[in-house]
Parts: sequence; structure tokens; C-alpha cells
Amino acid sequence: MRVLITGAAGMIGRKFAERLLADGAVGGQQIEQIVLHDVVTPETQGASVTAVTGDLSAPGAIDALLAHRPDLVVHLAGVVSGQAEAEFDLGYRVNLDGTRALLEGIRSAGLHPRFVYASTEAVFGRPFPDTIPDDLAPQPLTSYGTQKLMGELLVNDFSRKSFLDGVSIRFPTICVRPGAPNRAASGFFSGIIREPLRGLPAVLPVPREVTHTMASPRSAVGFILHAATMDTAPLGARRAVIPPGIAVTVADQIEALRRVAGDRAVSLIEERPDPAVWAIVQTWPARFEARRGRDLGFTSEQSFDEIIQVHIEDELGGRVPVADGA
Amino acid sequence: MRVLITGAAGMIGRKFAERLLADGAVGGQQIEQIVLHDVVTPETQGASVTAVTGDLSAPGAIDALLAHRPDLVVHLAGVVSGQAEAEFDLGYRVNLDGTRALLEGIRSAGLHPRFVYASTEAVFGRPFPDTIPDDLAPQPLTSYGTQKLMGELLVNDFSRKSFLDGVSIRFPTICVRPGAPNRAASGFFSGIIREPLRGLPAVLPVPREVTHTMASPRSAVGFILHAATMDTAPLGARRAVIPPGIAVTVADQIEALRRVAGDRAVSLIEERPDPAVWAIVQTWPARFEARRGRDLGFTSEQSFDEIIQVHIEDELGGRVPVADGA
Repeated sequence: MRVLITGAAGMIGRKFAERLLADGAVGGQQIEQIVLHDVVTPETQGASVTAVTGDLSAPGAIDALLAHRPDLVVHLAGVVSGQAEAEFDLGYRVNLDGTRALLEGIRSAGLHPRFVYASTEAVFGRPFPDTIPDDLAPQPLTSYGTQKLMGELLVNDFSRKSFLDGVSIRFPTICVRPGAPNRAASGFFSGIIREPLRGLPAVLPVPREVTHTMASPRSAVGFILHAATMDTAPLGARRAVIPPGIAVTVADQIEALRRVAGDRAVSLIEERPDPAVWAIVQTWPARFEARRGRDLGFTSEQSFDEIIQVHIEDELGGRVPVADGA
Repeated sequence: MRVLITGAAGMIGRKFAERLLADGAVGGQQIEQIVLHDVVTPETQGASVTAVTGDLSAPGAIDALLAHRPDLVVHLAGVVSGQAEAEFDLGYRVNLDGTRALLEGIRSAGLHPRFVYASTEAVFGRPFPDTIPDDLAPQPLTSYGTQKLMGELLVNDFSRKSFLDGVSIRFPTICVRPGAPNRAASGFFSGIIREPLRGLPAVLPVPREVTHTMASPRSAVGFILHAATMDTAPLGARRAVIPPGIAVTVADQIEALRRVAGDRAVSLIEERPDPAVWAIVQTWPARFEARRGRDLGFTSEQSFDEIIQVHIEDELGGRVPVADGA
């Protein structure tokens, strides 16, 4: 089994690669090689790892990657939402043309791999109901969502033509994101948990009544692994899946933090309303039916407490600094 | 007002151009120039007509067309369903890349025109309910439907960015198509009316219980005119519209033919089941809610009798040859 991961230096790519190295196999098949590609050098190291750094759109770059003849391609590379909105041409070049070139390269090489594509819940845009049903027409309101949805359609058509065997995952917001705070509008969903657990202050820019659907980084890796190994026959022509997540209000998040880490952690959250962030957050879906995703065997956390526990186990070595007096 | 029509030599393009020439204006604005483009020379002639023949994907072709600085662009050009399925690369090149290049050309030239895009009800694929609601997720099961849906998404995003003001029309089957029988799987819906009206035999390859949604060529021209002149504010970000059509069974079609042209016309229809055609037809949508299209002011025929009358008026000079003893 040979695996190619694009966008392998990103948070999910890195965690997925580490999981593969730890498991040594995917779906019972031993891993011979993991090719990691990104514009910055992927940090993941191992005997089976081949790291490739560069621009996917550079001439010959995709053919060189596919020369490793992967059986599994996990396509995570992309320009994120804010950048795709600000840089229109770049977003289309990377997110649409890059995906299409990879699909075309696979077709030309006759590889027929399992192809796991990172799509997004941002394919949906208002107006939508409180709970988004599985068969609601996506209506992206960003160039990023548009490009990802176009990528899904290509994955569907290339799968229907048997050029590859695709699964597109409409990722929910990943929480708790490890690492330093970033400037993504969704960053506070992680920040209000991650920082207080470490005894650091965090800002909450939106009302506590906001409902949002989240899954842990560990679940995100699980989604990819499941998409990589599942029987794709039940998908039919519909290769895009909404995986389950946990829909909680910010107030629920905060009470879960209190249960796990106590009042001191909660007291580190400062409510400082930010109308700009609030305006963006209001355009986002709150809840998803995700029945089809569950029926197809995708799983995630059952409560937000569990999401916090996963963060403590995977990022904090099982200890809570703030509870230790940090 | 300057108008550019791509695919102008096709049946709808020709009828739309003739309507513009007859009206001399669009939405109250006098027409100065109509630029007609197609791979074959458009037949439509008139003082304001500029005919351009060639491949839209040829270097400089789009820029040359846009140098006329159209206020209204009607993009009908495309490779049809069967050909896009048989010639995968050609379909993507013409239907996706051609549309995108036209949109990009408009953006580069800073034209901000009204942009009317010919999409298709083939963006929907099974499974779907008997009546397709306006907000059902499209699930194309052909490369053609995939490419048209991707085009819709581009029109949405380019409209959202105010590069143009787009309306995508998901055309139903057009009936009664004038001209000689063609080999399209849907051809019999027109053939069983068009041929008997002229005293000629026609073949019905599917059961009479088949339900299908249709609109006349005159309605198709009306859809384009309405899309060209409507207030687009109520569309919001959802630029794709399902216009109304008339949903009838083949048996309804035949009874309408009997009312309009008598038993002799009906006797010219030979039922000759064709499992290949029947297999294709079963994958097609039967009915559409189309409430949004109606609310947005799109109109079509109220009965299949009316569709036949339109054909008699527009193609047969108001006379029915078979009734005259043809």
C-alpha cells in the first residue's frame, strides 16, 4: 500500500500521517510508502516517508508525485477560506485547478486509487434550516465553498467514470485545534478551550447562544481513515458525505470546560463582542442531520466534554495545566 | 444595448436572435448590435447582426467577441449530453473551460453585463422524489450535468463578486422541437407530435405512462428574455432557476394531439418499445416544483394542447397538414 497525502504539513495532514506511521497499515494492508507533499516541508518523519516540497501547480509536480503510484490519495491541499476570498485567482488556481490537475493526472496514469477529498461544510450558505438535511442543495457564499463544491462534483464524475474511487468529506469545524491562536473567524471555538486549559486568557467575540457543529482533530483523522477503507458501493454516485459532529452552543462549550477544568479556567474567558466576527459566524450552518454519514459508518464524539478530553490526551499528555495551578 | 449570443446557430439561439430582431429592443432598450457566435455560421441576418464563426477556445476568440462590449451575454454554446459523455475531455473543455474562459474574459474586460447561462434539468439525477423541490441537492449522473452545474456555480460566484449579473436557466426538455428527427434519447417527445402533424409516421419507444416536463421553444425564448430583463435582486446568491414547464404523460401528449389534429394523426404513432431508450428515460426527472421560478416571473404553457398550438403557429404557419389530408 502506497499513500500520497497533499497538504501534508497542515494540522490534519500531519496527524493523519502520524496515525499511518503508528498503525503501519491501512485497512489491514501494510504501508510500504507514504509520500507527503506540501508547499512547506512536512515535519513527519519515518522510514517509509518520502517528503516532497513544492508547488503542486508547477510543471511536472503532479506527475512526479503520481510516479510513486499511490493506492490511496488523500487530497488535503488548498487555500483556506479567507485567502480564497481575498485572492480570487489564487483560490481558483489552487483549489479548483489544482484538484482537477491531480484528478486528471490520476486518470492519465491509470492508477484507479481510493481518493479522499477534503471538502467543507462551507458548501452550504444561507438561507438554510436550523438543521441542514443531507439532501439540501449546497449554496456556497464564498469562493472557497464554490471551489470545494466544484471539486466534489469532479470527484463524483471521475468516480462514476471509474477513473478513481472517491470519497469527499465535508469537514465540520475542527475543535480543539492545537497550536497558537490564528486569525480565522472560527478560531475562538478552539481558543476559548485551548487557552484556558493552559491557564491563558481567551476572547469570546460572539454571544453564548451561538450553535455550531464540531469534531476533534482525532475524529477528523478517523473520517479520513474511514473514507480510505470503507466499502464505497453504498455511496452510489453521491461521493460527498457530511460526517457527524457534535452540535453545541458556546454556553455548552463553556460548561463542559467548567466540568473538566473548573471555574478558574472558565474565568479566563473574556466576553468581548466583535461585530465583524459575529457577522461572519451568523452565515455559518448550526447543525447537520448527518444521518447518511452515520449510516455509512463515520463516527465522532458524543459530547463536547469528550472533545476536550481528546485534546487533553492528544495535546497535553493527559494533564490539565490550569488545574495544576498553571 | 449590445447583445452577444454564443451557440447562436442552435435552435434556441436562432429563435432568440430572431425574436430580438423582431422586437428591436430588450427590456425597453433599443438594440444597437447583436453579435452571434457559433462554430457554424449563424443563419440569422439583419442590419444590426454581426456573425462570428469559430471555436470559442481558439486563442483570442473570446476577447475578440467581448471587444464589442456587450451589455447582455446569452451563453448557449455547449457540447450536448451524449457527446460530453462519449468524449470526456471535449465535454470539459467546451462546457466547463469554455464557460469559465468567457466569465474570466468578462471580468478582465470589466464589462459587468447581464449574463444568461443555459443550464439544464440534467443537473438532477436519481434518487429523487416524484416532484423535485426547488432546494433539492442536484446530483448529476452525466458529465454534461456535472459540467453545467459547475458552470452554474461559477455564475453564482462571479455574480456574488459583482463581476457580472448572472441568471442560470435549468432548461426542461424543449417540445415540439422543429426540424428533422434527431438521435437524442428525448427526441421522441417531439417526434410523436411533429411527424404526425405533417402526416408522417413516428415511433414511440417508451410506455405511455412516462411523465416528463416540457416547454415550447417559444417559452424557452421567453425564459431567456425574462432572465435578460428581470430584477435580479430577489435571486440573492442563488442565480440558478428552474423555470416552470408542463408535466405530462406520453398518454396526455397523445390525447392532446388527438384533440388538435384528430385520430388520423394519432394513428401514425407506432409503439415500438426500445429498452435502451427506456433505460435512459427512467433516469430523468418527471416533475419539478418550480415555485421559485414562477414566483420570479418565469412563465410557460398551461397545457400540452397549448404546446402543440405554439408549434402549429410558429412552425406550420397556423395550419395542420395532416388535417388538410397531407
